[in-house]
Amino acid sequence: MAKTVFILNGPNLNMLGRREPGIYGALSLEAIEKMCAEKAAVLGLEPVFRQSNHEGDLVDWVQEAGDKAVGAIINPGAYGHTSIALHDAVRAVDPLPVIEVHISNIHAREPFRHRSMLAPAATGMICGLGTIGYVLALDALAARLQG
Amino acid sequence: MAKTVFILNGPNLNMLGRREPGIYGALSLEAIEKMCAEKAAVLGLEPVFRQSNHEGDLVDWVQEAGDKAVGAIINPGAYGHTSIALHDAVRAVDPLPVIEVHISNIHAREPFRHRSMLAPAATGMICGLGTIGYVLALDALAARLQG
Amino acid sequence: MAKTVFILNGPNLNMLGRREPGIYGALSLEAIEKMCAEKAAVLGLEPVFRQSNHEGDLVDWVQEAGDKAVGAIINPGAYGHTSIALHDAVRAVDPLPVIEVHISNIHAREPFRHRSMLAPAATGMICGLGTIGYVLALDALAARLQG
Amino acid sequence: MAKTVFILNGPNLNMLGRREPGIYGALSLEAIEKMCAEKAAVLGLEPVFRQSNHEGDLVDWVQEAGDKAVGAIINPGAYGHTSIALHDAVRAVDPLPVIEVHISNIHAREPFRHRSMLAPAATGMICGLGTIGYVLALDALAARLQG
Amino acid sequence: MAKTVFILNGPNLNMLGRREPGIYGALSLEAIEKMCAEKAAVLGLEPVFRQSNHEGDLVDWVQEAGDKAVGAIINPGAYGHTSIALHDAVRAVDPLPVIEVHISNIHAREPFRHRSMLAPAATGMICGLGTIGYVLALDALAARLQG
Amino acid sequence: MAKTVFILNGPNLNMLGRREPGIYGALSLEAIEKMCAEKAAVLGLEPVFRQSNHEGDLVDWVQEAGDKAVGAIINPGAYGHTSIALHDAVRAVDPLPVIEVHISNIHAREPFRHRSMLAPAATGMICGLGTIGYVLALDALAARLQG
Amino acid sequence: MAKTVFILNGPNLNMLGRREPGIYGALSLEAIEKMCAEKAAVLGLEPVFRQSNHEGDLVDWVQEAGDKAVGAIINPGAYGHTSIALHDAVRAVDPLPVIEVHISNIHAREPFRHRSMLAPAATGMICGLGTIGYVLALDALAARLQG
Amino acid sequence: MAKTVFILNGPNLNMLGRREPGIYGALSLEAIEKMCAEKAAVLGLEPVFRQSNHEGDLVDWVQEAGDKAVGAIINPGAYGHTSIALHDAVRAVDPLPVIEVHISNIHAREPFRHRSMLAPAATGMICGLGTIGYVLALDALAARLQG
Amino acid sequence: MAKTVFILNGPNLNMLGRREPGIYGALSLEAIEKMCAEKAAVLGLEPVFRQSNHEGDLVDWVQEAGDKAVGAIINPGAYGHTSIALHDAVRAVDPLPVIEVHISNIHAREPFRHRSMLAPAATGMICGLGTIGYVLALDALAARLQG
Amino acid sequence: MAKTVFILNGPNLNMLGRREPGIYGALSLEAIEKMCAEKAAVLGLEPVFRQSNHEGDLVDWVQEAGDKAVGAIINPGAYGHTSIALHDAVRAVDPLPVIEVHISNIHAREPFRHRSMLAPAATGMICGLGTIGYVLALDALAARLQG
Amino acid sequence: MAKTVFILNGPNLNMLGRREPGIYGALSLEAIEKMCAEKAAVLGLEPVFRQSNHEGDLVDWVQEAGDKAVGAIINPGAYGHTSIALHDAVRAVDPLPVIEVHISNIHAREPFRHRSMLAPAATGMICGLGTIGYVLALDALAARLQG
Amino acid sequence: MAKTVFILNGPNLNMLGRREPGIYGALSLEAIEKMCAEKAAVLGLEPVFRQSNHEGDLVDWVQEAGDKAVGAIINPGAYGHTSIALHDAVRAVDPLPVIEVHISNIHAREPFRHRSMLAPAATGMICGLGTIGYVLALDALAARLQG
Repeated sequence: MAKTVFILNGPNLNMLGRREPGIYGALSLEAIEKMCAEKAAVLGLEPVFRQSNHEGDLVDWVQEAGDKAVGAIINPGAYGHTSIALHDAVRAVDPLPVIEVHISNIHAREPFRHRSMLAPAATGMICGLGTIGYVLALDALAARLQG
Repeated sequence: MAKTVFILNGPNLNMLGRREPGIYGALSLEAIEKMCAEKAAVLGLEPVFRQSNHEGDLVDWVQEAGDKAVGAIINPGAYGHTSIALHDAVRAVDPLPVIEVHISNIHAREPFRHRSMLAPAATGMICGLGTIGYVLALDALAARLQG
Repeated sequence: MAKTVFILNGPNLNMLGRREPGIYGALSLEAIEKMCAEKAAVLGLEPVFRQSNHEGDLVDWVQEAGDKAVGAIINPGAYGHTSIALHDAVRAVDPLPVIEVHISNIHAREPFRHRSMLAPAATGMICGLGTIGYVLALDALAARLQG
Repeated sequence: MAKTVFILNGPNLNMLGRREPGIYGALSLEAIEKMCAEKAAVLGLEPVFRQSNHEGDLVDWVQEAGDKAVGAIINPGAYGHTSIALHDAVRAVDPLPVIEVHISNIHAREPFRHRSMLAPAATGMICGLGTIGYVLALDALAARLQG
Repeated sequence: MAKTVFILNGPNLNMLGRREPGIYGALSLEAIEKMCAEKAAVLGLEPVFRQSNHEGDLVDWVQEAGDKAVGAIINPGAYGHTSIALHDAVRAVDPLPVIEVHISNIHAREPFRHRSMLAPAATGMICGLGTIGYVLALDALAARLQG
Repeated sequence: MAKTVFILNGPNLNMLGRREPGIYGALSLEAIEKMCAEKAAVLGLEPVFRQSNHEGDLVDWVQEAGDKAVGAIINPGAYGHTSIALHDAVRAVDPLPVIEVHISNIHAREPFRHRSMLAPAATGMICGLGTIGYVLALDALAARLQG
Repeated sequence: MAKTVFILNGPNLNMLGRREPGIYGALSLEAIEKMCAEKAAVLGLEPVFRQSNHEGDLVDWVQEAGDKAVGAIINPGAYGHTSIALHDAVRAVDPLPVIEVHISNIHAREPFRHRSMLAPAATGMICGLGTIGYVLALDALAARLQG
Repeated sequence: MAKTVFILNGPNLNMLGRREPGIYGALSLEAIEKMCAEKAAVLGLEPVFRQSNHEGDLVDWVQEAGDKAVGAIINPGAYGHTSIALHDAVRAVDPLPVIEVHISNIHAREPFRHRSMLAPAATGMICGLGTIGYVLALDALAARLQG
Repeated sequence: MAKTVFILNGPNLNMLGRREPGIYGALSLEAIEKMCAEKAAVLGLEPVFRQSNHEGDLVDWVQEAGDKAVGAIINPGAYGHTSIALHDAVRAVDPLPVIEVHISNIHAREPFRHRSMLAPAATGMICGLGTIGYVLALDALAARLQG
Repeated sequence: MAKTVFILNGPNLNMLGRREPGIYGALSLEAIEKMCAEKAAVLGLEPVFRQSNHEGDLVDWVQEAGDKAVGAIINPGAYGHTSIALHDAVRAVDPLPVIEVHISNIHAREPFRHRSMLAPAATGMICGLGTIGYVLALDALAARLQG
Repeated sequence: MAKTVFILNGPNLNMLGRREPGIYGALSLEAIEKMCAEKAAVLGLEPVFRQSNHEGDLVDWVQEAGDKAVGAIINPGAYGHTSIALHDAVRAVDPLPVIEVHISNIHAREPFRHRSMLAPAATGMICGLGTIGYVLALDALAARLQG
Repeated sequence: MAKTVFILNGPNLNMLGRREPGIYGALSLEAIEKMCAEKAAVLGLEPVFRQSNHEGDLVDWVQEAGDKAVGAIINPGAYGHTSIALHDAVRAVDPLPVIEVHISNIHAREPFRHRSMLAPAATGMICGLGTIGYVLALDALAARLQG
């Protein structure tokens, strides 16, 4: 039986590769999706990969993940810093494991990026490791599912 | 002539009954809708009952209520704590009476839930009384419309 | 068997009707007491209605309610914003249901009125709905007592 | 016709003369009462001079002043820094002129004495001028009464 | 060749003319659109004029402007005070010149309106000058494009 | 010659044994009074043991202790966190040694209990050691009186 | 021998009578000067009355007062809220008695007016009593000089 | 009849062109004065253009503008962030329209530049648009004078 | 069987008797050790008494106490205000009873001494009672061990 | 050629398995060391695995890593929240890649654990994923070393 | 060729020797000027020594130093804590070396003196070393000019 | 008789020359030691020069300086911002003159470096003047020793 994992991306992540490459790297979101697909295949996971600039879409999708997935990876972009709605969505699908990923090191940037409103509801966070953070999060989910 | 009342529900309230029942109770949003419909009938009010995870939908609907309704009840969920847009929408439809309802006691939870950005624009707030808060809000609207 | 409900009123509420009617309305406390008595009769509750300007009296009465009443409604007036003693009294009589009522919308007034120290200990709060808030609180208590 | 003026003193002011004379001076409260009586006689005012350690008494007395007096002088002592109840009492008897007096300069002491919760509701404040502050407040009330 | 300029309007700006006219003036959004069209014609610019109550729409449109426009004017409404997503969108389309416009003087209103989250990412801001702010922003964009 | 020691208890301490026993223990205030009486007898001290829910009573009693006692123990309950009046009373009877006692560890509870307004005026504080804190405080007073 | 008293007025006080009369009253600064001159004559004091919009002038004049005057009255206007230089000047002429006067009740206005930087260095403050505050300050200085 | 407009410049603006050109641009204050003169001529306005490093001069000039001008433009430089005196001066000449101009985007710089103390008293603000901000402000004043 | 109690002293406590005797008293740490040894003998406890200026030593020793002792007394000195490591060490040896002792009244000193980072993890705290605090803490530990 | 990686563990991590297993898991530090050794072998890395309760040791070792290692993993324990010294050490060995690991989700715990002082200097952070975080960090280092 | 160094002194420094000698020492400003002249002669520097109570004068003089001097020493007095104008002036004359000197240790005084607004713009600061701080600053300037 | 002066260096100062030379300069700590030795010889002082990454070592050494030295210079590095223990050590050896030195201008860097916890206990501070700060501190100590 396939194990679905939602990989959800928040606002402006569709601009990756073009957007402030000094901060976010040169990889496009499509390239990340491909990288995730390859890794997921190795781990026996089936990724659902989405992006939206709408906070409400992310809330909808987290709820959907609660029904359809065995785990979720969320790069909430800017909504990670402001969205209690997303925090609540993750708590509403508890005990679904949810890993927050940030490509850049949010702690090394402007003060308004230091706090994640999502983090207290998430299982854990990976930040600052670039696009490989997605791959590590898949590894972590796979490990949790195994043990 | 029918008296329309909008009853608007914010993010994750569609998860009621499944979401943290220790906090939010075991009643589903459908059950609340039914409860409101029965009460409204008694009071001679005609409820329009909606839910969305999108802040913009709530803003749209408050504006719509300004045109079509004699009052509104809003359970803004998490957007109550962060949305100045919703605050402004309520002020933009002034003098429409708007009652904010929270099922849980927001003052007894995490600090980021203590403040409601919506409250200063609303007529009043009922919180912590569970799903009966909706019914009390209908009573309060009816009383205002009468007197 | 009669079901006693304490309705306790804090400082300056004896001035209602004379005090800043633009904020608190034109009804006197006596009129509110009468309104509560009528509602309580309908609900099969027996109200004990008191007012004091002394924080200690309110603490005494909450403790007394713990022994004699099936529920309490407290309009703590200004002490709601400052009194940890009152907060502790309500916790000391747990699980007595206690509903905090404010006639005005405390969230739409000066910053020092936004926070209620009582609220985290209370069951819930009704504010900004005028004197009808007392009646709604009686309804809510009756509903809790029923089940 | 006599013009009654309430002169109300808060907690620990009965200790004047014995309490930290380096801060509060060597005059007893009785001596201040006598000083006020003499000044009031000159101004054609009839002073009612009281002291209590109970916040509620001060609230009661301000309300009473609203009925019986043409003005009030309040040295709220420590309650000046914490009492919203007293603030509300003064607003409830508006437009009664109320002058806040502090013997010591509250702005030159500990940070928790810098803010007066009473001051925004009072007509004005005199502080740091020692016991003569009471006499100046009587002068100010008399001047207001004259027009 | 035409020079496209995006003029984007955030939540509740569709209520202009009806919404708190003492603050926002009596002009409708349609009138502002017309005013902008006339000015743009003079300046040789081609305006794309839009409004939405959805934060995500504004983010989408800023990204679109990055592809299609030579500059943008944003009246973010309430989202200006809370949206890091919009801030990031503007940075993602750098070096597109973006001018933030507020009809009212946000610094003279409630504290939660004093801070603009968008401003640090924008080129500059015009506020408090009423609806003429849009016209001035067009002038400023035209000047930047010229030199 | 007998040496009087005042042992003063603030709001809700009359509920001990019934009030949140997980926090405050199972001993009633009467049992503590008995425990103190026995210890005082051993130390040659004569305890005056009182409780009130009224802040003003505590202020009155501290002043009385200044005249009649060689030391005081105060468990101020909630007033410890808010009462500048009590702080001033203790300073007004300086150099009377005054030891603040809290049964629970106030530093391990809600943030609003972390600060004691009384502590800076007191000689010292014992907290978190349960009801034995009273006995230790008597020991400390006795030791101070000896030398 | 004449006793010189400096009466120093800060920025915008030359606009009195024209400036926000609802807050500052209808009296011009010239009228206040005259009122002070009459009172001073009664008290045997010789007033030096000045106004400047320059913080440095006020500092210069306080230093001058240290050499030439037996006391000073300062209405620092806005500099009262921001000027450490003025605070230091008053401390530098210690023990010259200096009374701070504000015509309006600074505690009842915007938050940035609540704090006086001058107050901790001054002898005391009179505020909110209107232009009579100057006269009361002269009385207070005279009383200090006598005793 | 000529319509006088005051254009007032605060501290260090006389250094424009030499001072941090990366932030403030390469134009000297003389060049800005010339640019304003040309624009004013077109608009039928008569500019009075001044600069001072003294806060008091700016206060003096705003008061003078209240008597002689139909509007004012103020680039307060650093005093914009600290001067309540300037804020008060603008309020004292109400209803004179006053537009605050900053060449740089104060919201994108150090935190101590984000807040303008002048802004709540001004009609509006233009910032971050470079030296053209002066010209836009003249346009805005002209528009207000017309209608 | 002997009952070992660790008595651990933090930075600068080896300077007792020489260091600010007005604050810390004239007793040396050796004298306190002797006093503790005598008291412990009476109580049937075996004290291990140590001091270090190294935060890491205190952490090491608390861990060691978890293995070897039935209770611990810690005077953390300055590390009490800053060390989360020490807080964690105490939690890591839970349920070992740990009593925090401060010779001086930390609440009556500089603000940075008011908060103890250790206190929320400790059983309780004794402060301000001088060196007798150690003896009282031994009493408290003995009482806990008995019952 | 072997590639050395330092894996440094801060205070109380030697208590793993025994310390609050609900938070930190049941694995001992030795087990983690073994897990890292196995993973490192797979990746062709040579781990140096150390633990200390002394902040200074961690600083020493980071400096040593700057000379001997190609990367470092630091679980700073409590020092992560307080140590600027450690922050500086990591910056002093720049560009050595340093990954911060926390076993628990620091954002879901007490407020004093939310901020990492180390994080702004580190390359990135992994938290809340349990002991697998170490393995993921090794993966991330290996990926960086490859390019 | 002579090397001019500006030594600028802010408000109340003309009172040195008379002003709070316990804090500022017994030396007059004239004595400091003489001391600086002697030291400058040794170092081959030509001092320009000035004092003013006017913030604007200090700004003027820093600008003048930018044209005429090779370095500057500023004892800004109270303006150091409040003046962004002075901060900007120093940045406007960059790269002129500017050393801030305070006679007293500003970090050991009232909180409002702890922060220097000038310091982030200055090269460095010397404080708390008394009047010798001026001499050390001259040494430091000479050293910079040499190397 | 030789006059010993302790020159103590905190964490990461052993990395000087290699560590962020743009901030800390190119000189190694050995070079600074040599520079100090030469200067001390001129002044007749005998330097003891040490460095440690351990806070406890610095505390130990300050205590040792209290016994052996006539003065101390401390560059506390990062511990200057966090160590109350070091603050207390300096106070414990009072009246030993202690001068704090920072090579970089801590006020021009990250906010967490602006505050020195050591400074209020030290005699004074020199910062931002580079490595010459050590030499100036020696001069200052020599001057104090001379009188």
